[in-house]
Amino acid sequence: MRYKATLEYDGTDTLGWQRQLDGPSLQEYLETAISCFLGYTRISADECGNVDNPFLKYGKEPPIEVFCAGRTDAGVHALAQVVHFDIDTQIPEWKLREALNAHLRIAEAPMSILQIEKASPEFHARFSAKGRGYIYRILNRRAFPVLEKNRVWWVGVPLDVEKMQQAAQYLLGHHDFSSFRAAACQAKSPIKTLDKLDIIANGDEIRFIVEARSFLHHQVRNMVGTLKMVGDGHLRPEDVKRILEAKDRKQAGATAPACGLYLSKVVY
Amino acid sequence: MRYKATLEYDGTDTLGWQRQLDGPSLQEYLETAISCFLGYTRISADECGNVDNPFLKYGKEPPIEVFCAGRTDAGVHALAQVVHFDIDTQIPEWKLREALNAHLRIAEAPMSILQIEKASPEFHARFSAKGRGYIYRILNRRAFPVLEKNRVWWVGVPLDVEKMQQAAQYLLGHHDFSSFRAAACQAKSPIKTLDKLDIIANGDEIRFIVEARSFLHHQVRNMVGTLKMVGDGHLRPEDVKRILEAKDRKQAGATAPACGLYLSKVVY
Repeated sequence: MRYKATLEYDGTDTLGWQRQLDGPSLQEYLETAISCFLGYTRISADECGNVDNPFLKYGKEPPIEVFCAGRTDAGVHALAQVVHFDIDTQIPEWKLREALNAHLRIAEAPMSILQIEKASPEFHARFSAKGRGYIYRILNRRAFPVLEKNRVWWVGVPLDVEKMQQAAQYLLGHHDFSSFRAAACQAKSPIKTLDKLDIIANGDEIRFIVEARSFLHHQVRNMVGTLKMVGDGHLRPEDVKRILEAKDRKQAGATAPACGLYLSKVVY
Repeated sequence: MRYKATLEYDGTDTLGWQRQLDGPSLQEYLETAISCFLGYTRISADECGNVDNPFLKYGKEPPIEVFCAGRTDAGVHALAQVVHFDIDTQIPEWKLREALNAHLRIAEAPMSILQIEKASPEFHARFSAKGRGYIYRILNRRAFPVLEKNRVWWVGVPLDVEKMQQAAQYLLGHHDFSSFRAAACQAKSPIKTLDKLDIIANGDEIRFIVEARSFLHHQVRNMVGTLKMVGDGHLRPEDVKRILEAKDRKQAGATAPACGLYLSKVVY
């Protein structure tokens, strides 16, 4: 039976979504929880060589594999990542969620399952997705963040929200986003359609709400990093048009830090 | 010169506001930062016996003393705690804030100074305060919190917000709050006037907004703990009237956890 699950996670102390041999990943936390639920004995701390958390290393071939809608980088969070996996069980969905959450809590995993439902065998978390939404949060004030530590990008210089909003208009629509593409990006084409890029100020927080069918690697963080340079006066709004048209990563601003980014929705 | 400062802090890994000999306190973090700023040499990790963070122990008599509007317990946060202290310096307020924040960041203190202004010699953070506001946050959903870990009280059973709102009406106004008073409370009288107790649901968060001139020890957490029992059906709204009139702590519900509570404003 195929299941679709919606996850919340804190990417701070992980290497990101994808399973890695040299540290904890969100994929591994979830696969370990599912494997434990299915009755596989987890290997001991001695065997896995990780004394702090034996759940982190399960060996190279976990009994089950989880597929996600969008692999997030180290430090990036999720409000609603979507995954699918195939397991054989008779218990109802709500009970499966409770059981897996119990395993995640025991492992002190920075992940919680918000919802589980049965899916058709054709459903694929990544390939069936018709749209993805991200939120990027900037805390724009002089005092460093304490309650929102690792949850926002702290920018201490005042940002002009209106200018950033003007600049954002150039990025909307169908474009070659090469200027905002990470070198490691594996997408076949740099051409994407950006459906939404709203910038909303609320108190000392500035929130970017971004939606598209799909994104290039680092695209959201590179766009935010460039718009921030408009906000602090290093660029004019119309410079963003020039940067986009240059199709050259070196023209755009630095990649915004991972800690401000949240995968917020996946549409099917 | 007397200064008034507004602070944000995360109470999670502290013993609360008040300086203690057996662990880190928010008062000590701030007094240490001010002392360092004034040029006092902090004692070494060896001397203070705390290898992890030599800032935590400064000895029994810090060079300066800070007074706050409301001493918060271990685990309780602040969005806007107010303090005053007297120091001799010529630098402008904004520069003092930057300097103290630099010391707090170096010490990895869970505290940040939002604002500093000069105050009159008669100003006293505690005794000049005319009102205090708290926010209490409940996360009401089945999945345990990850992004809001240590920031909310996680309640997994559904709460009836309307019933809690009905019950809250009995607590508003001038009453003997003995039923909601901690045994350790040092207040002279259990009689207080509760000016506001709004309960607002937003998504899966339930927020209590509470205001009064002053509060008894644990009063907000005891009121929230009792209202939660109305929300989950263990009590009827009118039971809260009976509990209040009983003037007996044993009649009310358990104290709500510290992690959901925020000192949110102090009015002068």
